[in-house]
Amino acid sequence: MANGLQTPATDGARRIVISVDAMGGDRGPAAVVAGLAISASTYPDVDFILHGNEAELSRLIARESALQGRVTVRPTERVVSMQDKPSHVMRHGEGTSMWSCIESVKQGEATVAVSCGNTGALMAVAMIRLRRLPGINRPAIASLWPSRNPGGFNVMLDMGADVKAEAEDLVQFAMMGASYARNGLGLTRPRVGLLNVGTEEHKGRAELKEAHELLGPQADAGAFEFIGFVEGSDIPTDRVDVIVTDGFTGNVALKTGEGTAKLISDFLREEFNASIFSRLAALFALGTLKRLQKRMDPRRANGGVFLGLNGTVVKSHGSADATGVAAALRLARQLAAAGFQDRLAARVASALRTGQDAAAETPPSAAEQGPGGDRIQ
Amino acid sequence: MANGLQTPATDGARRIVISVDAMGGDRGPAAVVAGLAISASTYPDVDFILHGNEAELSRLIARESALQGRVTVRPTERVVSMQDKPSHVMRHGEGTSMWSCIESVKQGEATVAVSCGNTGALMAVAMIRLRRLPGINRPAIASLWPSRNPGGFNVMLDMGADVKAEAEDLVQFAMMGASYARNGLGLTRPRVGLLNVGTEEHKGRAELKEAHELLGPQADAGAFEFIGFVEGSDIPTDRVDVIVTDGFTGNVALKTGEGTAKLISDFLREEFNASIFSRLAALFALGTLKRLQKRMDPRRANGGVFLGLNGTVVKSHGSADATGVAAALRLARQLAAAGFQDRLAARVASALRTGQDAAAETPPSAAEQGPGGDRIQ
Repeated sequence: MANGLQTPATDGARRIVISVDAMGGDRGPAAVVAGLAISASTYPDVDFILHGNEAELSRLIARESALQGRVTVRPTERVVSMQDKPSHVMRHGEGTSMWSCIESVKQGEATVAVSCGNTGALMAVAMIRLRRLPGINRPAIASLWPSRNPGGFNVMLDMGADVKAEAEDLVQFAMMGASYARNGLGLTRPRVGLLNVGTEEHKGRAELKEAHELLGPQADAGAFEFIGFVEGSDIPTDRVDVIVTDGFTGNVALKTGEGTAKLISDFLREEFNASIFSRLAALFALGTLKRLQKRMDPRRANGGVFLGLNGTVVKSHGSADATGVAAALRLARQLAAAGFQDRLAARVASALRTGQDAAAETPPSAAEQGPGGDRIQ
Repeated sequence: MANGLQTPATDGARRIVISVDAMGGDRGPAAVVAGLAISASTYPDVDFILHGNEAELSRLIARESALQGRVTVRPTERVVSMQDKPSHVMRHGEGTSMWSCIESVKQGEATVAVSCGNTGALMAVAMIRLRRLPGINRPAIASLWPSRNPGGFNVMLDMGADVKAEAEDLVQFAMMGASYARNGLGLTRPRVGLLNVGTEEHKGRAELKEAHELLGPQADAGAFEFIGFVEGSDIPTDRVDVIVTDGFTGNVALKTGEGTAKLISDFLREEFNASIFSRLAALFALGTLKRLQKRMDPRRANGGVFLGLNGTVVKSHGSADATGVAAALRLARQLAAAGFQDRLAARVASALRTGQDAAAETPPSAAEQGPGGDRIQ
């Protein structure tokens, strides 16, 4: 049946296949299958390979009419838990639904892998099976961040693939993040900023000052605009499209933002519940409060993308419900439809050549940049 | 008149003197003097030494009846701007209002210094004039963070005194932050957490794992409870009282939290302005929305405290208005009234002895910990 999934659809367009780990999330396979059903109804051009317990998945799929004929189940017996150490899963993870999910991308039967499981383990399995793109030192996790930009989101990376990053890593993050912003958010020439404790050039850590110097000359090859240092307060604004930082800082910033949003929405709920009068006011303001809730809904931006590997992996939030899973699948489909993986690989290869040429002090001619160059990404 | 400020008041209680830099803030001396007037009305036991342009300050003070007989003006001609580099101010800052403000604490005529000026310059001047407490490697800036704790705030440090911190620095931050939480927030045995990307002990950077090992044994000497690693999402909760991190991460987290709060309050305003109906709903919910706004007001928590120097310095937000300045002065008064500086110095000295004893593998007896020990802080 996997072959059948790869054949052209009746309208002649190539079908998109997404490989999905059904087992690793906090809410179990029911939430994943419900998300699949939403995605299948919305996107008729997508089919799924679903990895996990065969009996349970078949039962869940049978209930969803939208999924009939759209899902291949890959039976696996073992599950990676949220407590498993990445190093352990890397050595002993074969036979888990997560491993099998990545394997489908490695074998070329699916374009993108999606999992709600243990982030560290997923990165470890993706690293060992898909391997890094040639020239990439550290892969990164890129997330969407609600912002004042017209599209409603910025891209930020690394969100926790690794706890540190050297200057060269930050430059690669900028290039990969810009490519993701072009293909995931449709921005032609994304504005890239380096996260620091101030916008003055003398501020910050040594690797940031070095990356600042390297990024200006890279901007043309990477088809982005480098706007220099940005601060934490700039993350949710319209000043910047791609925010580059190390995985430690990115992870702390993300969770701090989430914690702050939760504190404020708790305050909002408490104040509207404080008295009979405020409860009446809440009833009166119900439509407004529901629109606000929708705008603040973290499920809308669900899906961290692993960048820098030979294959695209989308990490959904562990506690994602059907809506959250569907958002991760929408992102996976968008990246597959845009041909993101090939574009990213070409961009990295081109930048690598540019860097080598620069190191040899020979400015590359347009021809030396290879076919495609700026155009295809 | 400075002498007069130090004499006992009629009720026999010693008066508190706060040294205030009138010039460095974004809103100029008018906001500072207005904040002084609020503080003087609220706290009859406080007098002020105010540093800056004599003519301007005298005119502003003359308008405020609450300030009559409560303020000594120290004339200074020069002002540190927000653009001045700390290293430049350190060498050439004498004669500025900021320098003079710190000098009053150094000379013992005021207990705490307060400034709205350039943070880096203020730390540089404080470092060179007040000097570090014996045994302290890196001073830190501690800020209050709105949280679900009964008092409404947590303490977090370092918020940007330095861009990095070694394991030993983090241990000193924990001790100093706990002492601040006892004296500033009235917590007997504060819970201290180390900020990391996960709560499992194997996660994070090397210096964090090392600090984790060092902090457990230090908890008794520091009179705090060590709760291990915490994440960004824990910062605004009631799980922890003191959050310890390096100045780079702390600064990014603070500004990310501020940016997120601003984004949400913008959303709230926009949704309640979206239609005639939602504007009516906002009118109906006005009381509730005003209470919410008050709870989210960042001015309530204004004031970063410099810890680890021979003297206490409170850094107010550069854009603080009268309400913000008054909040910073309230904090300064609270710390002065609690005898915070002497308690902190005794705690650091005691921990230093404990550390030296531990290094010599001689467990200290209660007598060796010196007079006071746990009791006085």
